[in-house]
Amino acid sequence: MTPPRQPRPARRADAERNIAAIVSAALDLLTKDPDASTADIAKAAGVGRVTLYGHFPTREALVEAVLDRAVALADAALDDPAYEGLPAQEAMSRLIASAWEVLDGNRRLLTAADRVLPAERIRHYHDGALARVERLIRRGRDEGVFRTDLPLSWLVTHFYATLHSAAQEVEAGRLDHADAARVLDATLRSVLAAGG
Amino acid sequence: MTPPRQPRPARRADAERNIAAIVSAALDLLTKDPDASTADIAKAAGVGRVTLYGHFPTREALVEAVLDRAVALADAALDDPAYEGLPAQEAMSRLIASAWEVLDGNRRLLTAADRVLPAERIRHYHDGALARVERLIRRGRDEGVFRTDLPLSWLVTHFYATLHSAAQEVEAGRLDHADAARVLDATLRSVLAAGG
Repeated sequence: MTPPRQPRPARRADAERNIAAIVSAALDLLTKDPDASTADIAKAAGVGRVTLYGHFPTREALVEAVLDRAVALADAALDDPAYEGLPAQEAMSRLIASAWEVLDGNRRLLTAADRVLPAERIRHYHDGALARVERLIRRGRDEGVFRTDLPLSWLVTHFYATLHSAAQEVEAGRLDHADAARVLDATLRSVLAAGG
Repeated sequence: MTPPRQPRPARRADAERNIAAIVSAALDLLTKDPDASTADIAKAAGVGRVTLYGHFPTREALVEAVLDRAVALADAALDDPAYEGLPAQEAMSRLIASAWEVLDGNRRLLTAADRVLPAERIRHYHDGALARVERLIRRGRDEGVFRTDLPLSWLVTHFYATLHSAAQEVEAGRLDHADAARVLDATLRSVLAAGG
């Protein structure tokens, strides 16, 4: 038996370019419309549907690739070294505001993801971003300003669940978009406060 | 054109008995295993798969019927007139404890629902039960013990999202089952408290 031949470099480069174009087009379309069709995504990416299905056989697979990309972009946007120099409570308010801004921009993508992926799978893509939240809560506990009577992992989950439910509420028209950042800040700080 | 004939009463009674048996069997199996198959549910209900598919053509349809039934049972369990005589804070702690007990018993059903239904659809089935939460929060605001700086609808959503994320955390092994009731009480009361 001879080993299978590697794809020629030119073909591999083509495939990588197509994948990048598909994920980028899907990110663009799904953040506007969670029901954007695979045909529309292929068209916007400048590839045929057969090519798209070759790389992403299911809508789940495509949505997972888009989530991965969106979270990587979000993580870069949240990476503000200035947080480190601020008291934990103030740094937390800034982190809540930035995280909400990013999530708000992606809330239709979240709807698209919710339709095809289990909650636990969507959460998985946020682990990296949530490590940042965990570090800041831990620092606030060390500084004595955040509570220590609840598990750290629970406080991180509560942060995640509260932000995501705010996105769903805005999308459903039950929470005023202009009020969401204030509501989130007040809610999360009430739960985190020491002696609360 | 003659109107279509009504099904004979005996056949209608059979159909109703089958539907009740299927929903009851599905509730029983899905609260133990979110991946319980349609074949297993039909077998436990004592009906053929064709009969099951005749009443519930998709897994979504069956899971929706089970959710509807589970929430009706939960609502009856929560209907404790004694709440009315208690101060709002104490009544809230009792409501949190009862709601968690019911949700905890159904947390695998919730996983099953999450796999096939969008979050907004699952939320829809809880509207009746959440009306009870809303009434109690409103009473606590009237009594001056619950905060009024955040929208009432948001406080209700936060209650719902926090309980459901605790169920997911327990299921994922990230939150200690024995600690969940205490954690929920502390979290929700921190958010509801006036002057928090």
